[in-house]
Amino acid sequence: MPPEREVQVHLLPELAPPGRFVGGVAVVIDVLRASTTIVHALVAGCCAVRPCAEIDEAQTLAGSMRAGRVLLAGERGGAPLPGFDLGNSPLEYTPKSCKGCTLVLTTTNGTRALVRAAEAERALVAAFVNYSAVCEQLHQDARPVHILCAGTEGEVALEDTLLAGAIVDDLSEACEVRLNDAARLAWDCFENHGCLLQGALEVSRGGAILRKLGYDEDIRTACQVDRFHLVPELKRDPLRIEVGAVGIMKKRWRH
Amino acid sequence: MPPEREVQVHLLPELAPPGRFVGGVAVVIDVLRASTTIVHALVAGCCAVRPCAEIDEAQTLAGSMRAGRVLLAGERGGAPLPGFDLGNSPLEYTPKSCKGCTLVLTTTNGTRALVRAAEAERALVAAFVNYSAVCEQLHQDARPVHILCAGTEGEVALEDTLLAGAIVDDLSEACEVRLNDAARLAWDCFENHGCLLQGALEVSRGGAILRKLGYDEDIRTACQVDRFHLVPELKRDPLRIEVGAVGIMKKRWRH
Repeated sequence: MPPEREVQVHLLPELAPPGRFVGGVAVVIDVLRASTTIVHALVAGCCAVRPCAEIDEAQTLAGSMRAGRVLLAGERGGAPLPGFDLGNSPLEYTPKSCKGCTLVLTTTNGTRALVRAAEAERALVAAFVNYSAVCEQLHQDARPVHILCAGTEGEVALEDTLLAGAIVDDLSEACEVRLNDAARLAWDCFENHGCLLQGALEVSRGGAILRKLGYDEDIRTACQVDRFHLVPELKRDPLRIEVGAVGIMKKRWRH
Repeated sequence: MPPEREVQVHLLPELAPPGRFVGGVAVVIDVLRASTTIVHALVAGCCAVRPCAEIDEAQTLAGSMRAGRVLLAGERGGAPLPGFDLGNSPLEYTPKSCKGCTLVLTTTNGTRALVRAAEAERALVAAFVNYSAVCEQLHQDARPVHILCAGTEGEVALEDTLLAGAIVDDLSEACEVRLNDAARLAWDCFENHGCLLQGALEVSRGGAILRKLGYDEDIRTACQVDRFHLVPELKRDPLRIEVGAVGIMKKRWRH
């Protein structure tokens, strides 16, 4: 029998002790909206996304780069930031708005999780819109998997846990896995909510915040399972996200 | 239509921001094993349980009390503590071992959650063994409910989340509820694991730790839904747990 593969879910970045991801593959999830937006941006032709945890850090970094090729983007509490070029709505990221540019991105939850994932040997960015492509990358990799959910303002997020559970579901189908308790909770969440994706995203706290701000269309956009076949991957020196792999063999969504 | 009742689950004590429980009813859960043990101890005739987060604090408190009527009890990592009278196995708590005594208790996860719950207006202790009795107390109370899971050494625990979900399930049956995302995850967990309680406890991380230490019987004991009809309740000045209510109208477990 082949050895069990380690698959751990971390429902919030702060729930993963420092060093936990070392030697593993991290999968960063912030469905509403950073990870969905990053996929959209790379599909639209962005060269790279530079994640910054803090607003001033993003401003300093963008200021130090060559103007015209850099866009300052992000949000706090879901709302765009004054003086920034773009917000955090995936629909803003079209070839017209961002092709050929580097994006300096700071968001409430997602960019912190991305920076945290840098300790892993490899780090991918997952959303529903690139689900099967991410799963295939994980199948081709034997290292322990750490699925890192960004959450919503320090609280666990239904939509991130749901996608984490969908990835656990697919990995469990393919091989023997050793799950932590959070991975079992995430799997349960996928079992119950996977067939009603949009409804789950709408009742989630993150979804409620977006609906209040008028971003209903972003929720529908975030639900489009396998719309794209591209996997964003974290690169180093400097820390940035670029296109890691493109293409899928088959659709893996079970519901 | 009656107003929605607020029902929040907190998967770990540190995930609830300070002040969150003020004005509400807290329900503290540490299925393996502190909350199960506390129910057993009160049923066996313990007068009160004094929860202490730290070992030295427990020793000092027990030392300051009248000998013969006080028992020093607890564990770290599941194992009994040197020099302590009792461990944290519910089976140790018989009328012979503890009737008429005050228990000074310190455990790895549970007693910290109990101390944290003291900020609520009212705090109850829940286990599977007193499930319906706790639910009935919550039905008779209109305040917001905060279900606080102790977790296992800083990680979310399947068994605590499962019981939290069972309570969410019962409250949702009775009235309109406003749930946070963690409450939805807990409910999903109950949906999937509620019919296989012992199996869930055995695969959980806390269950694995106990099995390694030879406490398999404690897991079976913790699964005995509604074995008792007693609700431990936190009292103040000094902070202690005593029998709050006894009796149930009906069994509420749905699986």
